[in-house]
Amino acid sequence: MRSDWIAPRRGQANVTQMHYARQGVITEEMDFVARRENLPADLIRDEVARGRMIIPANINHTNLEPMAIGIASKCKVNANIGASPNASNIDEEVEKLKLAVKYGADTVMDLSTGGGNLDEIRTAIINASPVPIGTVPVYQALESVHGRIEKLSADDFLHVIEKHCEQGVDYQTIHAGLLIEHLPKVKSRITGIVSRGGGIIAQWMLYHHKQNPLYTHFRDIIEIFKRYDCSFSLGDSLRPGCLHDASDDAQLSELKTLGQLTRVAWEHDVQVMVEGPGHVPMDQIEFNVRKQMEECSEAPFYVLGPLVTDIAPGYDHITSAIGAAMAGWYGTAMLCYVTPKEHLGLPNAEDVRNGLIAYKIAAHAADIARHRPGARDRDDELSRARYAFDWNKQFDLSLDPERAREYHDETLPADIYKTAEFCSMCGPKHCPMQTKITEEDLTELEKFLEKDSALA
Amino acid sequence: MRSDWIAPRRGQANVTQMHYARQGVITEEMDFVARRENLPADLIRDEVARGRMIIPANINHTNLEPMAIGIASKCKVNANIGASPNASNIDEEVEKLKLAVKYGADTVMDLSTGGGNLDEIRTAIINASPVPIGTVPVYQALESVHGRIEKLSADDFLHVIEKHCEQGVDYQTIHAGLLIEHLPKVKSRITGIVSRGGGIIAQWMLYHHKQNPLYTHFRDIIEIFKRYDCSFSLGDSLRPGCLHDASDDAQLSELKTLGQLTRVAWEHDVQVMVEGPGHVPMDQIEFNVRKQMEECSEAPFYVLGPLVTDIAPGYDHITSAIGAAMAGWYGTAMLCYVTPKEHLGLPNAEDVRNGLIAYKIAAHAADIARHRPGARDRDDELSRARYAFDWNKQFDLSLDPERAREYHDETLPADIYKTAEFCSMCGPKHCPMQTKITEEDLTELEKFLEKDSALA
Repeated sequence: MRSDWIAPRRGQANVTQMHYARQGVITEEMDFVARRENLPADLIRDEVARGRMIIPANINHTNLEPMAIGIASKCKVNANIGASPNASNIDEEVEKLKLAVKYGADTVMDLSTGGGNLDEIRTAIINASPVPIGTVPVYQALESVHGRIEKLSADDFLHVIEKHCEQGVDYQTIHAGLLIEHLPKVKSRITGIVSRGGGIIAQWMLYHHKQNPLYTHFRDIIEIFKRYDCSFSLGDSLRPGCLHDASDDAQLSELKTLGQLTRVAWEHDVQVMVEGPGHVPMDQIEFNVRKQMEECSEAPFYVLGPLVTDIAPGYDHITSAIGAAMAGWYGTAMLCYVTPKEHLGLPNAEDVRNGLIAYKIAAHAADIARHRPGARDRDDELSRARYAFDWNKQFDLSLDPERAREYHDETLPADIYKTAEFCSMCGPKHCPMQTKITEEDLTELEKFLEKDSALA
Repeated sequence: MRSDWIAPRRGQANVTQMHYARQGVITEEMDFVARRENLPADLIRDEVARGRMIIPANINHTNLEPMAIGIASKCKVNANIGASPNASNIDEEVEKLKLAVKYGADTVMDLSTGGGNLDEIRTAIINASPVPIGTVPVYQALESVHGRIEKLSADDFLHVIEKHCEQGVDYQTIHAGLLIEHLPKVKSRITGIVSRGGGIIAQWMLYHHKQNPLYTHFRDIIEIFKRYDCSFSLGDSLRPGCLHDASDDAQLSELKTLGQLTRVAWEHDVQVMVEGPGHVPMDQIEFNVRKQMEECSEAPFYVLGPLVTDIAPGYDHITSAIGAAMAGWYGTAMLCYVTPKEHLGLPNAEDVRNGLIAYKIAAHAADIARHRPGARDRDDELSRARYAFDWNKQFDLSLDPERAREYHDETLPADIYKTAEFCSMCGPKHCPMQTKITEEDLTELEKFLEKDSALA
């Protein structure tokens, strides 16, 4: 689909959606997004031009079905996949991608750190993906110097970043906001630095006593991104790894730098979103969202969770879906999912499913709370089906129809129960939904009450 | 334990904790609660006297370990169990009770509607329970007239209510706030009345065109409760059953009546908490909590969820844990759990576990967000263990240690991995927690940065 759209743009010095938007052009991608979001195309263009919305759409990702990330559009969900050194291969990763898309992932990040040829895995994923693909180039940069952090040079980073662009990666996490002067601020933390990419950059800076090369070469990255329309996902290397560390000086200092970098990228019409925490108590979530908007001039916010407590490993899809729903309500544009295996191990297919559904719930609840037009329609339709005991319709309208059906059928599998006026929860005689008060009953009652009050 | 405490009170006309508190007495129960909550005993007494806290503690539930429900104490979680007409028996219900207590239920409601002798099941549960037991007497009242709603009389209700008191039930859901004049207000709803007890009362009123007998005989119930110290849990018959119906006139009209009834009960020193919704969009949760405090003079609020979207049957422990966490943060005193089987079938043991942990997460996150002293200590301790790769300690500090261990061991079962500086999520070389920046590194860096800025 996109090949035809992109052909005339090839060879231009700047092919970003933001660049076209700022020239007043409504691209095919913007038009596509407008229809998906049921929003006016010129609103999409204006939001992209303003930097408040991004359409991550590398010109080399031609099978992409464009989507938007921004406060004006529906809240989005990202799923992470990726091979780890001793697990997974190309086929498995493509399967995980398909699973993520099936359960509603709006974008997918390939966080592969090993387990095969990283370039081949990435290419296979992009070729199979209708959704934007994001990556974290630091991992491969480190692999290119055989894991010896001190050997990394700015050129190593730029080389990998450009390679990902060529392959069609739609956005890359760039840890450019972590400055050497931020490092002493982690002293009072319980969990220090918990960003993998950020940790690598920190070690590099400690070894060389030099400024972050991704910061000093930020304009070089911009020049690369311009030619492919790869979007920045500015990494938050100092995101808190536990409640204790949330909203501290380290985190907020980096956020300020991320805001400065956002505006530098915008000077070159390059699209930006900004990554956020992490682990945050409920009462600090609104502050975190507002602060990001303020510091980063309303560039879309893309948060990981946040987890609202640290004491539930095994259930962190839930601890974080609570924070994610609230963050989405306050205006966060995209939520990065967390699976039940977080902090414990590599997620399997069932974990991906559970993580994604938890986040689809969070994003949808956020859309409803933000009063997006039509956001509640599906809820109302399902509720009507529920009240009418139309079980099959109720399942069909569910976020995970197979799961809903499976749970129902666990106790009442026979077909006849698909129209029964009860389930096994309350049994045949006690379902409250059987208490249907008819219009006639109520009209009669109203007449009675009128007469009654006239007598009083 | 309580037998000795209660002996001298027997035969007194009013044995409620509120009655003693208002006389300035700190009962053994208040003292016990004060130690559990790490709060001054006179604060507990004052809150109970004020009606802002209840200690549900029937004098006939002697094996009870007293606990408190109120905004001054930690947020609590209730689990529902109960036999349904074609499932479960006494042993199974006692097993469910033990399971609920194991996973942290602060109170348990026996919602049995059949499947055996209701009195025997209830007695077995109370005898086995260290936590307060709540019931909904309407179900048994209906059973006593063989399910023929129109046959129910006020005496039938009072008879069952007193029976439950005699058996040692600590609180009963009383649907006294649903008035006949509220019924026409459900006309515009999608899901009408979704409270089982409320539905029964509504049908009774429609049939007889008479006022709710639980309302007209409210003082008779008070007289019974006084003698046993059974607490009111004022039922919200008109709680919304879907987002569309949330915060509507029907719900709020009943809430106003619940507030009036609260104050009537307080005139007789009888303890009260008030039940709340249900299904509520995130942006209406704070309103619902504040409104209840206002209408009900700050009597403890006890909510079911609320679910923040209707489209995820099979995952309603998550849709509702989001709402519950927020409700707890805004000041709700107790959260009634919802299991993954909600709307689909009778929960099994695994569902009870998943529902309870989701709600322990919600209540704990609420305690943290409300800045209760020490609420975050366990989070900090677990985070320290996590950063130190002390896996066993991390598991032990978890809400569900078995689950955390199981997930970790799924990929790395060998003992040696319990001290490994990684898990299978990132593999041996990429765990961000390995990036430990030492004090020495930072001191050296700070010196360097000082010199550097002096040069600038």
